[in-house]
Amino acid sequence: MIEVFAFATPNSVKVPIALEEMGLDYRLVPVNLRQGEQKTAAFKEMNLNAKVPVLVDRAPKFGDGKVVLSESAAILVYLAEKSGQLLPSDGARRGKVFEQLFFHASGLSPAFLQAFLVSMQSPQPEAKERALAEVDRALGVLNHVLEHHEYVAGSEYSIADIAHFGWIWRHQAIGASLDKFPNVRRWYGEVSTRSAVVAAIAKTLALAQ
Amino acid sequence: MIEVFAFATPNSVKVPIALEEMGLDYRLVPVNLRQGEQKTAAFKEMNLNAKVPVLVDRAPKFGDGKVVLSESAAILVYLAEKSGQLLPSDGARRGKVFEQLFFHASGLSPAFLQAFLVSMQSPQPEAKERALAEVDRALGVLNHVLEHHEYVAGSEYSIADIAHFGWIWRHQAIGASLDKFPNVRRWYGEVSTRSAVVAAIAKTLALAQ
Repeated sequence: MIEVFAFATPNSVKVPIALEEMGLDYRLVPVNLRQGEQKTAAFKEMNLNAKVPVLVDRAPKFGDGKVVLSESAAILVYLAEKSGQLLPSDGARRGKVFEQLFFHASGLSPAFLQAFLVSMQSPQPEAKERALAEVDRALGVLNHVLEHHEYVAGSEYSIADIAHFGWIWRHQAIGASLDKFPNVRRWYGEVSTRSAVVAAIAKTLALAQ
Repeated sequence: MIEVFAFATPNSVKVPIALEEMGLDYRLVPVNLRQGEQKTAAFKEMNLNAKVPVLVDRAPKFGDGKVVLSESAAILVYLAEKSGQLLPSDGARRGKVFEQLFFHASGLSPAFLQAFLVSMQSPQPEAKERALAEVDRALGVLNHVLEHHEYVAGSEYSIADIAHFGWIWRHQAIGASLDKFPNVRRWYGEVSTRSAVVAAIAKTLALAQ
């Protein structure tokens, strides 16, 4: 059984979405961030970086040890390769999935995170504006990407869609709007109503209840 | 022949390092960021996100089209899979490489970028301190990672080392120090003197001359 240490967060939700899509058995283990459980010695033994989600797979495909993995996108790649799903095997299409995974990790996700932190901490309107401008820049890039393709890495749904979905799911919480980005809105509407996504969101939100 | 559109930047240098390590033929094509060449229509056709590096491979392993790829870490994964080098094929060790690639993309790299931007733009000492504190936090995580392993993803040099090297190569430019992080310093000393790394740095710096 795969265990996922997680909480009701944008990065956490990606992992159960992937597991639901792939039809793999798993169990979510709550790590209460409000109580700082991610900073305990036991948790940091799994992830020195003190962040959810963390995956523990005691029945990996290769080897006979257990796999303990952090970084949500690294977990998505691991699960895609384990299941043979949601990540094409050939060069160009596979490359586009990784391009979007890393654009997500280094561009879109830090922009959303910064806007979230600013919305929590800073009373300065210009700091909020600057952060939201960077969110809009990232959404603008994604909107162009989605102009000619149904999904973010081409014509097939992939783990790159799941990665982007995590933060975009929370766009309202940081005061962003998808109105200026019709292709993102169309994509978001479709992805958010997939049955695997609906099921994963319900299970993820339940972690904070 | 592989073409790499690049400039003398932390993200650009990773690609020639990988190509030198792998012994693949390539040509660097300068994109002068000082003159805004990354924002031209021709460049944005390769990368909507208007950032270097971009890889163009007209002889991909799969298919007969050409591969055009942005995001330095996605390019590293592509080249590792094309050459069969610097990325283990089994689950646990491979997972650790991706974990570090995504920790780099979402953690260490944005922290360094923010410190670089603050050092260029902001006269506020507390903004600079805050940015450098996040750099130190990321370096601290990496220092722990390197406590028990020679390289960032285990006992073998991998594309994750190349990814981390890009920004850490520029630590002095943002006012960071490795003195508090002896394992990072040891690793940096070894990686920076590899012949492939020395050759790639020389070629990358020449792009800005």
